[in-house]
Amino acid sequence: MTTASEWWQTALVRIQPGEIALRGYPIEQLIGEVTFPQTIWLLLRGELPTPGQAKLLEAALVAAVDHGPQAPSIAAARMAATCGIGLNSAVATGVNMLGDVHGGAGQQAMTMLRDIRDSGLPLADAIAEYRRWHLFLPGFGHRFHPRDPRRDPLLRLVAEAVEDEVVSGDYLVIALAIENAIAPVPMNIDGATAVIYAELGFAPELARGLFVLSRSVGILAHAWEEQQSGARIKGPIPRPLLAGYTGPSLRNLDNGRQAQL
Amino acid sequence: MTTASEWWQTALVRIQPGEIALRGYPIEQLIGEVTFPQTIWLLLRGELPTPGQAKLLEAALVAAVDHGPQAPSIAAARMAATCGIGLNSAVATGVNMLGDVHGGAGQQAMTMLRDIRDSGLPLADAIAEYRRWHLFLPGFGHRFHPRDPRRDPLLRLVAEAVEDEVVSGDYLVIALAIENAIAPVPMNIDGATAVIYAELGFAPELARGLFVLSRSVGILAHAWEEQQSGARIKGPIPRPLLAGYTGPSLRNLDNGRQAQL
Amino acid sequence: MTTASEWWQTALVRIQPGEIALRGYPIEQLIGEVTFPQTIWLLLRGELPTPGQAKLLEAALVAAVDHGPQAPSIAAARMAATCGIGLNSAVATGVNMLGDVHGGAGQQAMTMLRDIRDSGLPLADAIAEYRRWHLFLPGFGHRFHPRDPRRDPLLRLVAEAVEDEVVSGDYLVIALAIENAIAPVPMNIDGATAVIYAELGFAPELARGLFVLSRSVGILAHAWEEQQSGARIKGPIPRPLLAGYTGPSLRNLDNGRQAQL
Amino acid sequence: MTTASEWWQTALVRIQPGEIALRGYPIEQLIGEVTFPQTIWLLLRGELPTPGQAKLLEAALVAAVDHGPQAPSIAAARMAATCGIGLNSAVATGVNMLGDVHGGAGQQAMTMLRDIRDSGLPLADAIAEYRRWHLFLPGFGHRFHPRDPRRDPLLRLVAEAVEDEVVSGDYLVIALAIENAIAPVPMNIDGATAVIYAELGFAPELARGLFVLSRSVGILAHAWEEQQSGARIKGPIPRPLLAGYTGPSLRNLDNGRQAQL
Repeated sequence: MTTASEWWQTALVRIQPGEIALRGYPIEQLIGEVTFPQTIWLLLRGELPTPGQAKLLEAALVAAVDHGPQAPSIAAARMAATCGIGLNSAVATGVNMLGDVHGGAGQQAMTMLRDIRDSGLPLADAIAEYRRWHLFLPGFGHRFHPRDPRRDPLLRLVAEAVEDEVVSGDYLVIALAIENAIAPVPMNIDGATAVIYAELGFAPELARGLFVLSRSVGILAHAWEEQQSGARIKGPIPRPLLAGYTGPSLRNLDNGRQAQL
Repeated sequence: MTTASEWWQTALVRIQPGEIALRGYPIEQLIGEVTFPQTIWLLLRGELPTPGQAKLLEAALVAAVDHGPQAPSIAAARMAATCGIGLNSAVATGVNMLGDVHGGAGQQAMTMLRDIRDSGLPLADAIAEYRRWHLFLPGFGHRFHPRDPRRDPLLRLVAEAVEDEVVSGDYLVIALAIENAIAPVPMNIDGATAVIYAELGFAPELARGLFVLSRSVGILAHAWEEQQSGARIKGPIPRPLLAGYTGPSLRNLDNGRQAQL
Repeated sequence: MTTASEWWQTALVRIQPGEIALRGYPIEQLIGEVTFPQTIWLLLRGELPTPGQAKLLEAALVAAVDHGPQAPSIAAARMAATCGIGLNSAVATGVNMLGDVHGGAGQQAMTMLRDIRDSGLPLADAIAEYRRWHLFLPGFGHRFHPRDPRRDPLLRLVAEAVEDEVVSGDYLVIALAIENAIAPVPMNIDGATAVIYAELGFAPELARGLFVLSRSVGILAHAWEEQQSGARIKGPIPRPLLAGYTGPSLRNLDNGRQAQL
Repeated sequence: MTTASEWWQTALVRIQPGEIALRGYPIEQLIGEVTFPQTIWLLLRGELPTPGQAKLLEAALVAAVDHGPQAPSIAAARMAATCGIGLNSAVATGVNMLGDVHGGAGQQAMTMLRDIRDSGLPLADAIAEYRRWHLFLPGFGHRFHPRDPRRDPLLRLVAEAVEDEVVSGDYLVIALAIENAIAPVPMNIDGATAVIYAELGFAPELARGLFVLSRSVGILAHAWEEQQSGARIKGPIPRPLLAGYTGPSLRNLDNGRQAQL
């Protein structure tokens, strides 16, 4: 029979009175010695990354922190900050909205890269086959940027890491081949970070998880900027909408009820 | 009259087609060059930190990532991960719970440190006065650790930063004086990070905000560990509770209704 | 020592294999026999309401279901519905934002009514005293409606319930005296529902709780309307903002770093 | 070009200064005249239901309000209530967790019923075909109840509504045929409410939406019960877990780093 201890077992952290150890390392040894991204890696993967691995992870985390207040996750967090809930709840509001459509492209791109790699087909054939079944290739194209300014610096770092034998480069090759096949649509932030996370051996689900950690920074910063403005109950536009109603004209309840009979 | 552009104005990020600039710095210059904590500082404060400032911030972020599955924020995120919602929503579940009681002690400790500093009284008097009005001093004592293992390494880094003239040390002095006054109750993680954030010039509200960014890492790692377990609809204990009901005995609706008449 | 059964004890519901009883009543007796508002009352209060009590509660729940897409809770839920998360998460997004500022006025109004009643002062004196200490009286005035159209029908129902001896009318008298004292600022939905909930004996915290149940209906309906529109990643205004940036001009990272030295 | 008014258009509610109309009906006509479930129907469907339709909807809403603190949505909401966030955020915590696994069975069951009806096959063949492709039939069986006590009263109400020509009974026939085909596994609450919502013409997505409205009641009641207990930072079991750690033994950071070289 399962006990409560088994039910709540974890390999992440060992807590005793006076002791906190992350994946076996006492917290007092980690503080001041390892970086924040190394700690993220340690908790998610179980071991510390090499410096080269940590550098790639750090670049991906930096790249995705913010994309402006027109993103619904950011706009909603800013609104939340004016409603009398704490910054924690404002951040939660934004993070919660990073779902399949708004925050899931990285995970979908990783799955695509992995499926193509594991297909057993020659690369060009695998890509052609994939495109036959998928109209939309996650991680490519951007509805706002003709060329995503985060693509080049991220891929350059991957190329350097391949040269330094930090990563294999298998996924970089696949992603560039896809980009070539669908030219002139370039890779976007989701595609480039998917390459990094795949090269580093993360599971596809963690593309979303790591994006959440990264974008939380922008969500927090926007919520805090808004909170400082002193606005209260901030709606989507400056003043209440007097237009925009598309429903039925005013009608009388008694008539509505007779219509049921 | 306010326009939509004014309504959604921000000093954080400038977005144009092909351009993303954080606080004026093009994102392509930041990627691979600045660290993740430096980026956090840049977005929250407007300028890049010095290396010494960044080191203190990084240590505080590392220190608070996790405190085990008995914390409700972690437990709830693990449960959420078994309910068919994405990792983003599991993280949001945990972050949302870092409210005044579970995640607010750092903010309260910073406010206390600032109030004591700004009181204009000699330090010992200010502390005595503060204690007259507050039974509970935020940032001191821990319900589980006789001595919080994160206190010493964090305060040692602050002391070094004072020596290196990175920070003034004013808040460290106040916090140590409080600790001395209420001995043997030692400072905890919230007190030690409050010292760091106050020394670095953050607003008290951001003690909570930065704690959210730090603890998000543990919340994500736990949610991911749980998701990998394959559990579905995980409740608080292994099997449905057959005991625990403290309400009225079974009763008949007809009787309940007659009792109203 | 506390056991898990004690830790999760509840007086609300008794669950056994084949049995679900709410406050002692078998669920199979309730289904088809009691109304939804009666069930809400039963769970929150422990007993079934009288028909007169249920009628007042039902009116308050109907009155507050929606106030249009300019409310941040509704706007955020509509945005959420376009981000690839389920309707449950869209509703949670909106409900979470019903905090002290956006959804807390009813609770604050109930606290005010109770404080005035319990002051022991003659009513006019109590109101004057309250106004000396509080600039803002919760539950009165509306930033959009000169006269809230929900005030009159709600107060009329309370007056009828007083006549029928369903409720005492004590809180109605206080609220009308306040309205008279601050004329011409009329009571709003939060004030009128606070009167109802106070007359019915609910705790102030439940003014917020019951508002959450009511407004959830509008939040769900708006999220569903938006989801049907097929929009994806809906931001606050139609197209990405090209204006609105108020931060520093573009600058070079190298310069920024040298400035630190 | 889309304007902000078009961007935020809605057919649900018309708001003018002094005016709130739901689907065309002035709110002051609805208050005290229509029931809460009728208002839910009006907002979601556009017209008022007939009394027979409203009765079925009300029964389904009553049936699903609560299933005890062992459900993760309820447990998490109770935990949240002890963390210093408002009842609104505690309810949001629970509602957010009603995802595909924990709250999605009704939606899945409705989709199944519709797919079988629309298959064009004789009923027995359609069910057999469906079972060939689906191991798990949503809406049937319960991990806790040998026979869900909510099944019989709900289906009895549907049968009566068929007799009274309120609904067609098409979906009831399909669901009973499935139950017969997989005997002795009986229909559960999700299956029975799916029959009701399908008979009433709701879209499958709203099975989840309506479940959210119903279960919000139990979530609120549990959060409120917990908040009254005065517990702070309530974890899943009574005291911190001293066991349950399954990760590596304590290790030294220096060794870990050398291992990387």
